[in-house]
Amino acid sequence: MPHFITFEGPEGSGKTTQMALLQEALIQEGQDVVALREPGGTVAGEAIRQLLLDRSDLDLHARAETLLFNAARAQLVEQVIGPALAQGQMVLCDRFADSTLAYQGFGLGQPLTALVPLIAYATAGLTPSLRIYLNLPPATGLQRVQQGQAASHLREWNRLDAKDLAYHKAVYAGYQELMNRDPAGWHEVDARQPPAIIHEEILETVHALLHKEGQVPA
Amino acid sequence: MPHFITFEGPEGSGKTTQMALLQEALIQEGQDVVALREPGGTVAGEAIRQLLLDRSDLDLHARAETLLFNAARAQLVEQVIGPALAQGQMVLCDRFADSTLAYQGFGLGQPLTALVPLIAYATAGLTPSLRIYLNLPPATGLQRVQQGQAASHLREWNRLDAKDLAYHKAVYAGYQELMNRDPAGWHEVDARQPPAIIHEEILETVHALLHKEGQVPA
Repeated sequence: MPHFITFEGPEGSGKTTQMALLQEALIQEGQDVVALREPGGTVAGEAIRQLLLDRSDLDLHARAETLLFNAARAQLVEQVIGPALAQGQMVLCDRFADSTLAYQGFGLGQPLTALVPLIAYATAGLTPSLRIYLNLPPATGLQRVQQGQAASHLREWNRLDAKDLAYHKAVYAGYQELMNRDPAGWHEVDARQPPAIIHEEILETVHALLHKEGQVPA
Repeated sequence: MPHFITFEGPEGSGKTTQMALLQEALIQEGQDVVALREPGGTVAGEAIRQLLLDRSDLDLHARAETLLFNAARAQLVEQVIGPALAQGQMVLCDRFADSTLAYQGFGLGQPLTALVPLIAYATAGLTPSLRIYLNLPPATGLQRVQQGQAASHLREWNRLDAKDLAYHKAVYAGYQELMNRDPAGWHEVDARQPPAIIHEEILETVHALLHKEGQVPA
């Protein structure tokens, strides 16, 4: 069974960089690896992404926001992730269902009992083999994002940046809770380390996962 | 308790016209009436409407389509319908949750057991006092839509028009099933009648609903 590995954690934690480094390393080892991001990854998903992240005028309510993220997710699972896994490709994804639980659940105060069935519908029951969680304390993450914007304009403002520190703290506590509930399903990395160190740790974890299933000779 | 009345039925059945006529008549009688359409009615909802109806390139899967309609619905309930009802206004809406059951459920073959909880989440449990169903046989509805497009370009192509007759027949059967399950919640009108006759029948039905609750002197 090919693996579906997701990257979770706050903005500014280096998910995008680390996912690209992992993909490159795995491809050099001869693995067939697809890398995706959420929301996005399909024409519909990118259009939904624009609504969710670039439009500050929409004043989205929690339930509407949750449903939009899950609409993009349903399309991604159906059009890309499902077919890729069926063809034996490994799939890496920058955020997935756990982001909904952390951000729209713990962050916005919606009960997980309402969100879990909704996510099961959107994903048709697909869950990751492993989540890599880049742990960055909320204040550090916000600071990184703000510095990045001021210094380089490399990364544009998005709607989530407007949320306050209390929200990001609730999200942080939410991720901790999700990991406590299912320790075997997560690997937590300290995102304050240098990128090369983080990469090595992630690569080692993924190798362990592959060796465990005999997909790579030990 | 103020009333929430929805209009259901196929494209081409005259829902928009009849809702406008009903609103006008009720306003002349001194009622405070808001008229809305789905998807739409909010900035976010209109943006979602564009994705759903105007973009032929998105290739939306059933679950993604369903989640998008419900995202627009959640926003409409939260921003407009809920506050209007709370202020004592009567709300008319061109399509609501029953359209999801008819089109994305019966039409696209998704089980209602999956859709009902999703809709309950999106609407926060709000259901109409009455649905007015404009009954038009599927072939007649398609024909009207096509003639309208050819003759006047008044109404532009939308994505739903591309679905075939079998789909529209399944939707039609679905509406019949929904009415059978809850006869008291629906009023069915033969949409092949002249608009003025249809209007009178609808107005009479709404008067009966208001009298029953003592909101208008008999």
